[in-house]
Amino acid sequence: MAPALDQNSMFTLPTFRLECGTTLRSVNVAYKTWGTLNSERDNVMVICHPFTGSADVDKWWAPLFGCEKAFDPTRFFIFCANVLGSPFGTTSPLSIDPSTGRPYGPDFPPTTIRDDVRLHKLVLGHLGVSSIAVAIGGSMGGMTVLEWQLCFPGFVRRAIPMATCAKQSAWCIAWGEVKRQIISSDAAFKGGYYTRDCPPTQGLAAARMAGLLTYRSSDSYEERFGRRIQDTQSSLTENPAIPGEDLEHQPPFYAVQSYLRAKGASFCENFDANCYLHIIRKMDTHDITRGRLPSDKNIDDAAALTAVLATLPSRPLVISIDSDVLCPAKEQKLLADGIPEAQLVVISSMAGHDGFLVESKRINTAVVKYLESK
Amino acid sequence: MAPALDQNSMFTLPTFRLECGTTLRSVNVAYKTWGTLNSERDNVMVICHPFTGSADVDKWWAPLFGCEKAFDPTRFFIFCANVLGSPFGTTSPLSIDPSTGRPYGPDFPPTTIRDDVRLHKLVLGHLGVSSIAVAIGGSMGGMTVLEWQLCFPGFVRRAIPMATCAKQSAWCIAWGEVKRQIISSDAAFKGGYYTRDCPPTQGLAAARMAGLLTYRSSDSYEERFGRRIQDTQSSLTENPAIPGEDLEHQPPFYAVQSYLRAKGASFCENFDANCYLHIIRKMDTHDITRGRLPSDKNIDDAAALTAVLATLPSRPLVISIDSDVLCPAKEQKLLADGIPEAQLVVISSMAGHDGFLVESKRINTAVVKYLESK
Repeated sequence: MAPALDQNSMFTLPTFRLECGTTLRSVNVAYKTWGTLNSERDNVMVICHPFTGSADVDKWWAPLFGCEKAFDPTRFFIFCANVLGSPFGTTSPLSIDPSTGRPYGPDFPPTTIRDDVRLHKLVLGHLGVSSIAVAIGGSMGGMTVLEWQLCFPGFVRRAIPMATCAKQSAWCIAWGEVKRQIISSDAAFKGGYYTRDCPPTQGLAAARMAGLLTYRSSDSYEERFGRRIQDTQSSLTENPAIPGEDLEHQPPFYAVQSYLRAKGASFCENFDANCYLHIIRKMDTHDITRGRLPSDKNIDDAAALTAVLATLPSRPLVISIDSDVLCPAKEQKLLADGIPEAQLVVISSMAGHDGFLVESKRINTAVVKYLESK
Repeated sequence: MAPALDQNSMFTLPTFRLECGTTLRSVNVAYKTWGTLNSERDNVMVICHPFTGSADVDKWWAPLFGCEKAFDPTRFFIFCANVLGSPFGTTSPLSIDPSTGRPYGPDFPPTTIRDDVRLHKLVLGHLGVSSIAVAIGGSMGGMTVLEWQLCFPGFVRRAIPMATCAKQSAWCIAWGEVKRQIISSDAAFKGGYYTRDCPPTQGLAAARMAGLLTYRSSDSYEERFGRRIQDTQSSLTENPAIPGEDLEHQPPFYAVQSYLRAKGASFCENFDANCYLHIIRKMDTHDITRGRLPSDKNIDDAAALTAVLATLPSRPLVISIDSDVLCPAKEQKLLADGIPEAQLVVISSMAGHDGFLVESKRINTAVVKYLESK
């Protein structure tokens, strides 16, 4: 019998061979479950977390949790596992490399989303799961949903990919490169060989700020901040100043600057720069067609994508946010056009890419309706 | 008589008092003119450059230059002057502060777009200009066009603001803050007190890369780069590696990464970090309503904007690019809705904000047509 409500657990494997060819030793997977596995062991909902998320879905996606809501532990055995390279418990650049006795740091081998689903499937096996009823996730979580279905045909019955794509776009690779450049220009970064005492916080914060903007839209910022000036006294006490900056005698300090600085600083308290760069690389490798067509088949990229999408289980629910400028709605339309009998729900919102988290009421309604349908 | 074709000139003033209250001494203005001033001294076209532009309009906006084109030196006496704080000839953080004998660096006083037009008007006076037939510019250049008309009522007959706004938005202030954070996290920045021998090139390059992305659209990147991998050998020779990075043994190096690194590096050869940060601050101050309404008038921001827009000369040509994510089309619609009898041309293009430069053929057609109309 599987664990009961709200379990925070760690699964450990002696070895795990990655797609890149490297074998990791003493691999941990931090995961969390809610609800009870039924006797058929198939009432499983797998929630896949986005870039900076963790297994604590009840924290970062709380509004969807609860009885008769999308994530209903009285109905599903809900599972979420942290991905490789993330700082929230699963083996990552912060973990000790058994061969050196020191943290991997920048020498942590590259991992892929396929590595994550293969690893997480071993945890589900350990829990006695026979199949997945539904896999759901947004952004990187949506990429993971697609890979669950493609890596294990027949194992996942329904899928809800949101604000995501079939392959990481040039645009997203480009933003990843910008973040890489930002972090590596921080003197404290030292090519990734920084110490815990002196991490590249300013670079990581700046990269996070750039990320935050790409996750939203100009409209949402205008509505929230406009040209509002931050009270200088509260700026001085609440906001980290740039070294050498004199907030008191500078030109106006806008509320939106204050917001970004606070967000950047709090992010650095919980995240790690090498982990951040690692996951960017992981997302860069995302391409559901990679290695899935015989190399002697001389077909172009579009035909390859059509062929792979056609192999996915029919009738997923694909969700878009119309103001998403990171994974624009057309990328989800491509998914819905290619997967047999897909249902596409486009949510009109100024929340941008983050809409899959922000528009929780409408997301919940769409998911509940989909889960009730046959 | 004004100078003849293609003049590259410098105008010097003993003092110039800025909006912030500081008086600059020994102020230079780098400017360029093309064509001949007519006997009425009123056939003047003022071109206002964007953020990283210069007076060399014939270089950065070449396709619009020529007989029977938008910028026709046989018809107009064309003038473009470099803004305060820009590294291309006008007084800036790179200039020597007469009071110290050293470059101003980060101590260069803040300037506004209103300072620029007041300063450039002195140059026009020196050239004998009696009025401006048309002022044209995109992005920051478009802000400058609006300020020309508002600072000198009756002096500018026609206006062509493109891809611009009535006030710098929260979104643009936020991107400015991200760039500020990026540059200041570069160890070489030293609060702006870096030397010419050791400038913060990696931070400036990373900020430029972020900027480049905001100037384009995901579609344009997808079409140009997709997931194309850069040949490793050419990457090694053509691209600046991040310190500590081993391009030969990294995961795939994408063409879009190579492109961004090359663009970032070449930008640093011509631009200066303090100038970059200075102009961001200048744009942050852009708000055509600032100080233009009696403070005892208790009206809200929207009403203030409506009131100021209504004072602008009628019948400007406002140009939008529909994929602009930095100054979205709705911001130009606001201008066109508020300025009497404004004509709005929305150019459909995947080029994003940079569309005012990239879509030169369609921009040229729209401008020529407007200039021919009465």
